[in-house]
Amino acid sequence: MTKNKIRPGVYVYPMPVSIIGTIVKGKPTFMALAWINVVEYKPPLIAISSFESHYTNLGIKENQTFSVNIPSEGMVEVADYVGVVSGKEIDKSEVFEVFYGELKTAPMIQHAPINLECKVVKSINTTEFSEAERGHEIFIGKVVGAYADEYYLTNGIPDITKVKPFIFSIDNKYWKIGEFLGSAFSIGKTYKKE
Amino acid sequence: MTKNKIRPGVYVYPMPVSIIGTIVKGKPTFMALAWINVVEYKPPLIAISSFESHYTNLGIKENQTFSVNIPSEGMVEVADYVGVVSGKEIDKSEVFEVFYGELKTAPMIQHAPINLECKVVKSINTTEFSEAERGHEIFIGKVVGAYADEYYLTNGIPDITKVKPFIFSIDNKYWKIGEFLGSAFSIGKTYKKE
Repeated sequence: MTKNKIRPGVYVYPMPVSIIGTIVKGKPTFMALAWINVVEYKPPLIAISSFESHYTNLGIKENQTFSVNIPSEGMVEVADYVGVVSGKEIDKSEVFEVFYGELKTAPMIQHAPINLECKVVKSINTTEFSEAERGHEIFIGKVVGAYADEYYLTNGIPDITKVKPFIFSIDNKYWKIGEFLGSAFSIGKTYKKE
Repeated sequence: MTKNKIRPGVYVYPMPVSIIGTIVKGKPTFMALAWINVVEYKPPLIAISSFESHYTNLGIKENQTFSVNIPSEGMVEVADYVGVVSGKEIDKSEVFEVFYGELKTAPMIQHAPINLECKVVKSINTTEFSEAERGHEIFIGKVVGAYADEYYLTNGIPDITKVKPFIFSIDNKYWKIGEFLGSAFSIGKTYKKE
């Protein structure tokens, strides 16, 4: 195979789809976000990155908290909706039934199979690394509470086959989770190069 | 539905599977990594998080570079293999055929559909946020080069249905990508709450 040089892009395939919740001007607001992942498990830390002009960023900066909600595939339309419309123009406080945990400024979505309430421990603006005037804000959040209905759990942790999350590809498409491919930290043990 | 409080865990569902490449002691070495995502597109920035004692971290810190390789589902065994065995014990320099781009210390995997060569712009150790003695190192890397065989592209960007990447769930399982679910920034436009 010949390797072609392509435009240097952010080709991480694929990305999880989450819905981030916060409070702005006293009301819950939500935004779909695929730039999210784990950075530590002890303590549990998650990093998200969101363009600084987003309405949601206002709430995260003011409250220093946010929620992470993992939607199931049946929620794909509403997840996209809260990604398409801005809280600056539309009040999204009634889109979901919400509940709260320890943090009173991290509204969580009742209908989403998994909910995490997070406290910001660090913020970085990517303008630090460029000449750009505006950038994405990276928020590292500590998970202080996690919630799920019993229905979605297997041995106490969320089961992907029950949660049925979905994924995002950079060509702006959503995909279901497919077939089981193998057990991690296991199927490679017997690997031999041919 | 009743929400149960569960152990505060890093329940991001699902995570992409990547193979990180670097040079340690003059030789390429590789490690499977699922804690990776994008933090900016202009310039293209990717954040990875890897436990500080990993052999790969030595190379990233010394060279301030790393590669991101997106494996296809057919590479699940070898990807798991380089996640299971440590470079401290096994020389992984011959596991893959490698090539180099601009950076001479970011070995890329010929056989992986997508390759990114990255330059570190920031490093953070998560011990900053805890009482722990050791932690994960978050490396934010700027993508200085991206490579893919023509076969995997549609309109110049990698096509998920051709790349066939796979995903990781926190209960240590790998999964294929499933069916197309909808177009992002589109199917939510007509959403109405029932």
